[in-house]
Order: sequence, then C-alpha cells, then structure tokens
Amino acid sequence: MGITLAQAQAAIQAALQKSQELQLKMNIAVVDEGANLKAFARMEDAWLGSIDIAIKKARTARYFDMPTGDLGKASQPGGPLYQIEVSNGGLISFPGGLPIQDASGKIIGAIGVSGDSVENDHTVAQAGVEAVK
Amino acid sequence: MGITLAQAQAAIQAALQKSQELQLKMNIAVVDEGANLKAFARMEDAWLGSIDIAIKKARTARYFDMPTGDLGKASQPGGPLYQIEVSNGGLISFPGGLPIQDASGKIIGAIGVSGDSVENDHTVAQAGVEAVK
Amino acid sequence: MGITLAQAQAAIQAALQKSQELQLKMNIAVVDEGANLKAFARMEDAWLGSIDIAIKKARTARYFDMPTGDLGKASQPGGPLYQIEVSNGGLISFPGGLPIQDASGKIIGAIGVSGDSVENDHTVAQAGVEAVK
Amino acid sequence: MGITLAQAQAAIQAALQKSQELQLKMNIAVVDEGANLKAFARMEDAWLGSIDIAIKKARTARYFDMPTGDLGKASQPGGPLYQIEVSNGGLISFPGGLPIQDASGKIIGAIGVSGDSVENDHTVAQAGVEAVK
Repeated sequence: MGITLAQAQAAIQAALQKSQELQLKMNIAVVDEGANLKAFARMEDAWLGSIDIAIKKARTARYFDMPTGDLGKASQPGGPLYQIEVSNGGLISFPGGLPIQDASGKIIGAIGVSGDSVENDHTVAQAGVEAVK
Repeated sequence: MGITLAQAQAAIQAALQKSQELQLKMNIAVVDEGANLKAFARMEDAWLGSIDIAIKKARTARYFDMPTGDLGKASQPGGPLYQIEVSNGGLISFPGGLPIQDASGKIIGAIGVSGDSVENDHTVAQAGVEAVK
Repeated sequence: MGITLAQAQAAIQAALQKSQELQLKMNIAVVDEGANLKAFARMEDAWLGSIDIAIKKARTARYFDMPTGDLGKASQPGGPLYQIEVSNGGLISFPGGLPIQDASGKIIGAIGVSGDSVENDHTVAQAGVEAVK
Repeated sequence: MGITLAQAQAAIQAALQKSQELQLKMNIAVVDEGANLKAFARMEDAWLGSIDIAIKKARTARYFDMPTGDLGKASQPGGPLYQIEVSNGGLISFPGGLPIQDASGKIIGAIGVSGDSVENDHTVAQAGVEAVK
C-alpha cells in the first residue's frame, strides 16, 4: 500500500519542523497509496476546522495524483472541472496537498497541510514531501 | 429498468477499448433507467477520485436526460441553475456523462467516464453510447 | 493496488455464471487492495437495495481481511464487536463478502455479492474468488 | 484543549511499541479535550476498516469520559443506552478506547486503538494512556 509508517512519520516531523521555523500552527495528514489515512498530527492551537481540510487535501492529492492547487485552477467558474469539489464526500482544491513519491518517482501516498495561508500550507507540505526519498 | 447488463457491459467494453486506443486510464460507470448503478470498471492506475465522479456523471446524465456538460453551462455563477451540484448527494456538471438510448431513441440509462481531460472523458463516453443500439 | 481489472472482470463473470446456474439475480462488486471499487455488475431485476450492500460487503471483507459473515458472528448483542456496523459509513456483517487472494496467498482485493439468501450470496462470491488465481 | 502534541505522540509511540512487542498491527488515534483528532498512526498491513474505528473509539471515550467497553455494557438490547451507537455520526462501544488523564487526574483527551481482538486493542490503548502523566 505504498508509504510506510516510518516514511509517513518522517514527512510529518519534517512538516512540523518547518512549521515551527515559520511560527505556524498546522494540521498535517498523510494518506497511503489507497488514499487511506496513515498518520496525522495537529499542533497546539491549530485551527480545528483544518483537521478535516488537511485530511481532504491529502486525499485529493492522491485521488488525482497532482497538487491540490492544480485542481483548483481547473475548478473555477467557467473552468473544465467546475464544482468537482462536491464529489468524493468533499474535495479541497486549493494549495496544501501534494503527492508523495518514492525515490523511483512512483506515487506512494500524499500529504495535506492546513492551518495558515495556502502559500504557507503548500510550503509546509513541500517540506514533508522532501523528507520521503 | 431499461438497459440490460449485456448492453451495459458492451458499453463499458467499447469505452475501455477507446481508452486503450487513446492511451488513457479511465473509470467507467453505467446506470440504468432508474439511475441506479448497473456496471462499472476501473482501469489500472486510473485516478481513485474518479470512481465517484464517473458514477456521479452517469447519474447526472440520467437525472436530467442530457449530457453533463450541458448542465454545467446553466450552473455557472449568475446562471439559472447555479449550485445545482449540491443536490442529489452531489452532481457532476462537466463533460463525460451521456444518456444512453436504445434503437428507438428511448433513454434506457447513462454512462459516465472520468480519468482524463473532460474532452477525452466525453470522447470515451461517446464510444460507450455508440455500442448500445 | 493489487487486483487487476482483468482479474476483477474474471471474478465477476464467474460469479454471474454461477448465479445463472442457480437461477439467481445478483449484484456483484469487486474492490482493490485499497478497498476502492474496481468493477461491478447488476443482473436484470436484481434487488436495487443490494447495489449498496454488494459494495459494502466487498469493502467490509477487505477492511478486515475476513469473510463478512465472520465479522457478524462477533457483532451480535453481547459479542465483542457489537454494533461495529455503524463504522466506516456502514459495514455489512452477514455472509456474501470474501477477500480475494492471488496465487501466493496475498490479499489483493475482495468481492461482495448481494441479491438472494446469504447462503447463496456466499456461494456466488466463492465462485468469484476461485476465478482469481 | 488539554493534551499537547508531544503527549499525544508519546501515547502513540508507547502504543506502537506495545503493539510490536505483542506482534500486532494496529491503528492508533488520539483526540484532545474537545474530542477533535490530535494524532494518528497506522502500522503496516493494519486493517483499513480500523482507521475509522480507532478514531471513533477515541472520540467515544472522550464524549462520555469512560472506557468504550463500559458504554457497550449499557447499550445492549434491553439496556438503558440501547442503540446509542447511531448518535454522533457513529460511536464504538466495545473495548479499545480510553480517556487520557494528566498527573492531576483531569481528562485531557482520549486514545482509541483498533486492529486485533478487543482485549489486545484495550491492552495497547492502556499502554498509550500510561505514557501520559
């Protein structure tokens, strides 16, 4: 099923460290190849509403094997995937979700981060991705 | 309830063949006259998030007896059916869902395809429709 | 993600053939290693309420890597898993769902059958399992 | 909101260690004082259906500030809390969920464990509780 628990925990620890460096309060979720939750962590005073968003970002990134923000570019009014967010029990289509690849480039899971601006969410998610090689 | 299993499987096989010709990885769903799932197939490595979308496209096409993309034209901001997507447990209003008619023109079900661009989703759905006559 | 579409379709065809032999009207679902829908077929006049049950049986069998009926033995009043059915958006804990293994014994997916007595559902599911080796 | 991330991660690590000692494959969830997910980990090949159950056990233990198995004694047919499991989006009323207290005895969260027999689930949850003092 792709990503191991050790890899998922490494991604979360890297994302937590990046959050601390940037003084952010984040929710961080990792799903496996089957889009099932593998690991999760919420920092003190992180937004409660971001628990679900972090998990949905991770799922969305694995559901479509792309950064969540890329999906959002296509789901705007008039865009080809308008309102795709109502599928799959709710997708999140703004940045903060990224696929996780192994050293060979194979997608083995995904990470979702929520708790601050979408730019910061993306930056923290990227730190998690880079911890898995 | 309209479409038979043999017809639904013929539609799926035609859609799978078209997908292979175009080198696409697709989810393909067929619903019957009652908008209830009749047959489904997911190709290797097709997007997991497209399982639900393919089924919702098929349902949407039968719910309103029109191509899903036609619904999307009316559901844009300011349009007459704005936000219709939140009804029925979630509709998909971009292309890839088409009603299926029998030789007499009567609608007997619908097909939904998801896994690539909406143009390719539509092309593959059309191949499925044409297999049922 | 385990089971291939060809394997899933072989399981469904074997289950359909067994249903025809026994003159049953069945819904048959196959999920992959990640418990995500891979293939589905509904015979003419099969119970509409069994669409969801067949899918939930397949998911349940993969969720816990055991026949669904085994789960039901433990979920009775006074049993150790009483009311487990309310989890995971609804489990089905009576017979008709079975894990699917490859030739090496590894679980690669599951099949769920619904449409008749639980004994017949189980028999048809077993035919599907045996088609994948 | 009670439990800190450091405490939640300590509980999960203790539960993982106990699971490894007992050669079990577990899903482990920790919620905070507000019954919101704080941390989660799934071991390799742990039951996929136990993701939701572990989270629901943790929530249930904090919702009622008691071991989940205690709730199950009252929810049997004829019991005073019959069918309470359908509330709150689904409760789990068999063992494996325990409140977590701080050194002063105040409940600051809860842990839920799922993946094996309810006795083993409970044993592993207890190991998590004891790691937080």
